[in-house]
Amino acid sequence: MKSRGDDDLLSRAIELAERGRYTVSPNPMVGAVIARGRRVLAEAWHRRAGGPHAEPAALARAGSRAPGADLHVSLEPCVHFGRTPPCVPAIVEAGIARVFVAARDPNPAVSGRGIRELRRAGIQVIEAGPALRRRAESQNEKFRTWIRERRPFVLAKWAATLDGKTAATSGESRWITGKAARLRALLLREEFDAVLVGSGTVLADDPQLTRRLGQAGRRPHRRIVLDGRLRVSPSARVFRRPEGALVVTARPEKDPRVRRLAARGIEVWSLPGERGRIDLPKILARLAGEEITSVLVEGGADTLWTFFAAKLVDRVAVFFAPRVLGGSAAPGGVGGGGFPLGQTPRVVDVEHERLGDDWLVTARVERVRPRPRRPK
Amino acid sequence: MKSRGDDDLLSRAIELAERGRYTVSPNPMVGAVIARGRRVLAEAWHRRAGGPHAEPAALARAGSRAPGADLHVSLEPCVHFGRTPPCVPAIVEAGIARVFVAARDPNPAVSGRGIRELRRAGIQVIEAGPALRRRAESQNEKFRTWIRERRPFVLAKWAATLDGKTAATSGESRWITGKAARLRALLLREEFDAVLVGSGTVLADDPQLTRRLGQAGRRPHRRIVLDGRLRVSPSARVFRRPEGALVVTARPEKDPRVRRLAARGIEVWSLPGERGRIDLPKILARLAGEEITSVLVEGGADTLWTFFAAKLVDRVAVFFAPRVLGGSAAPGGVGGGGFPLGQTPRVVDVEHERLGDDWLVTARVERVRPRPRRPK
Repeated sequence: MKSRGDDDLLSRAIELAERGRYTVSPNPMVGAVIARGRRVLAEAWHRRAGGPHAEPAALARAGSRAPGADLHVSLEPCVHFGRTPPCVPAIVEAGIARVFVAARDPNPAVSGRGIRELRRAGIQVIEAGPALRRRAESQNEKFRTWIRERRPFVLAKWAATLDGKTAATSGESRWITGKAARLRALLLREEFDAVLVGSGTVLADDPQLTRRLGQAGRRPHRRIVLDGRLRVSPSARVFRRPEGALVVTARPEKDPRVRRLAARGIEVWSLPGERGRIDLPKILARLAGEEITSVLVEGGADTLWTFFAAKLVDRVAVFFAPRVLGGSAAPGGVGGGGFPLGQTPRVVDVEHERLGDDWLVTARVERVRPRPRRPK
Repeated sequence: MKSRGDDDLLSRAIELAERGRYTVSPNPMVGAVIARGRRVLAEAWHRRAGGPHAEPAALARAGSRAPGADLHVSLEPCVHFGRTPPCVPAIVEAGIARVFVAARDPNPAVSGRGIRELRRAGIQVIEAGPALRRRAESQNEKFRTWIRERRPFVLAKWAATLDGKTAATSGESRWITGKAARLRALLLREEFDAVLVGSGTVLADDPQLTRRLGQAGRRPHRRIVLDGRLRVSPSARVFRRPEGALVVTARPEKDPRVRRLAARGIEVWSLPGERGRIDLPKILARLAGEEITSVLVEGGADTLWTFFAAKLVDRVAVFFAPRVLGGSAAPGGVGGGGFPLGQTPRVVDVEHERLGDDWLVTARVERVRPRPRRPK
C-alpha cells in the first residue's frame, strides 16, 4: 500500500515544517505537500500562530489541481476551531483522495479524530511507520510536552570543559566556549519561549538573557529569574527592559522587596513551596497557562540540579570546550546534592555536533515509566 | 611525479603498520608495500621488537620480483644496527627503483639519513605530503615522544557522566560506563607499556590493573602506583602478582614500609622531589630508560591533575556515560587546584567514538611552543 515515494514526501513535509521552528509557538510545526504520485503540486508550512495552517495553505496553492491528489502532512489535520477554522473539512471539500500522516495529534482528547473524520468522508488515510513517526514527534517535542503534561518542555543547558568544569576554582567563567558555540547557544534562546536562570547566575554574571539574533521575530520572550530569597537587585541588567522579565520567589507578596521590583514594572510571582523553597511544578504549570511551551534553563549548577531532582528536565544541551580546567573545587554543570549512583537520570538519543573547536552534546532525558504489571 | 596511486599504497603501508599496534613496543609500527606501478607484489609489517623489520620482510616476499619495483613504507628505513641489521643496504641490494616514505625517523640524530643514503645509492625517494605524513606520525606518537623527549608518552584516561562526574557524592564510582566502554578501556591497557594510578585509587577501588584481553601477547606490562607517603598495603590486589608491579614513593629507601614491600618482591622506587612530593619528570625519565615508551594514567583525579599541572599529558581519553549525576561535591576527572581560566591546556584533534550507549572523546594535548622571536 505504502511506497517509498510516499515516505520521501512525508519526509519533505517534516522538512517544510522545520521552517517554522522559531516562529510557530505556541502552535506545533506543520508541513504539507500536495502531490499526484511523486509529482509535487504544492508545498506549504505553518509560519506563525494565528496564520494559516499548512494544509489550507497548500490546498490554496494547489487550487484546481487538488481534486484527486494526495496530501502528505507532518501532523494529523485538526478538527477543532482554534485561531483558524479546522483543516479536515477543507481537505474533504478540496477533493483530496489520500492523506499521508506522519504523527497523530498529541492531545489525547482529539488524537486520531482528524484521521477518523477524514476516513468517514471517504478519504484514504495512511499513517507513517515508526521511524518517520518518531522523527515527526521529536520535531514537536516542545508542543507535545506542553499539550500532554500541561507544563513547558524544559531544556537544561550548560557549557563545560572536557573535564566537566563550568568555571575555574576562582569562579572565573566567561567565554569557556568559542564564537560558534556561543551563537548556537543564543539560537536556543530564539527557539524557546522562555529562558530561566537562578539568582546566583544573575549575581555572578549579570546577564541580559535577551534574544539577539532576530530569528524569533516578535514572538514574546520571558526572561525568568528564580530567586527564592529575593537576593537580586532591581538594577540587574536582566531588568533593564522590564517587559518580559519575571522574578519567581518564595517570599510572600507583601515583602517590601517584591513591591520594589513591582514598582519598577517587573512582574513578580510569589510561589512559596515546602520549607521556603520555590514550587517548581507550580511555576511550570502557571507558565504553561500563559502559552509558554518551552523553557531553556541556563543555570547555574544549583538551579539545574533543582530541575533534575524534580524530574522536570526533558532534554540536555552541553557545550564542550576543548580544554582541561581541573580543580576539585571548580564547579560542574549540575550541582546540589547529586543523585546516588543507582538513581541517576539516563539520557538517550545522544547527538554530537561540532561547533568550531567546541562541540555540543544533546540528548533526551529518558522518562522512567512504571514497570507494567503482569496480567493475572 | 607523485600519482594518486602512490598515495593509496602509502596509505596501505600505514594500515599494515597498524597491525603491530599491540606488539611492537618499544619499536615503532611500520608497514611496507612492494609494488610495480599500482600492482602490489608483496606486503609486510613489523610484528614485534626483535623480529624482522617491515622492509626486509616485504623484500623477502617479493623475492625475484623486487628489482625495479617500488617500495612504499610508512617510516623512513633505518641505517643503524639495532636488534636487526639496517634496512637501507637491504633495499639497495634488492634493486628497488623508488622508495615512497610517509614519515621520517623521529630521532633527530638520524632523521633523513636513511633517505640520503638511499638517494646516494641512486634510488629515487619520494616523501609523502603533509596529510599522509601527519597520519604516519600520529600513528607512532608514543614512539616519537619516547625517542624525542626521552620520556614515555602519557595518556590521561577517566570515565565520567555527561555532567563530568566520575563518582557520586557518596564516593560510589564503579560501573559508570557500560560493557563496550569498559572493554575499550581494557584495550588501552594492552596498548600501553605501563598503567599508573595514585594511591587513593588503590585504597578506594583496589584494582588489579592487569591486562586481560591477550592483545599484547607476552609484552611486559608495568603496573605503577604513585604513593608519596606509602599508604598502600602490601596486600592490595595490584601486588598479587608482584612481577611488573612498581611503587614509586617520596619516602626514603630506608623507610621500613619500603623494605616491607621489597620483601614481598615488589619493586619500589624512592624518588623524593621538592616538598616531599614525587618527582614526576624523574619517574618518567627512569621509565623511559627501561624501554617504557607509554604510560596510561587511570586516575584518580589528583594524580591526573599532577600530570596536567606538570605539562606531562600528551593525550586524553574520556569515556562518557549517558547519565547525569549532579552534586557540587561529587568529584570530576581532574582534581587538584585547577588552572586559572587563561592557562588551561587546550586539546586538539578531538575525536568522538560511540561505544554502545556511551561515547569516548579522545584528543591530543596541544604543545605550547614558545612564540618565535622576530628576526632583527
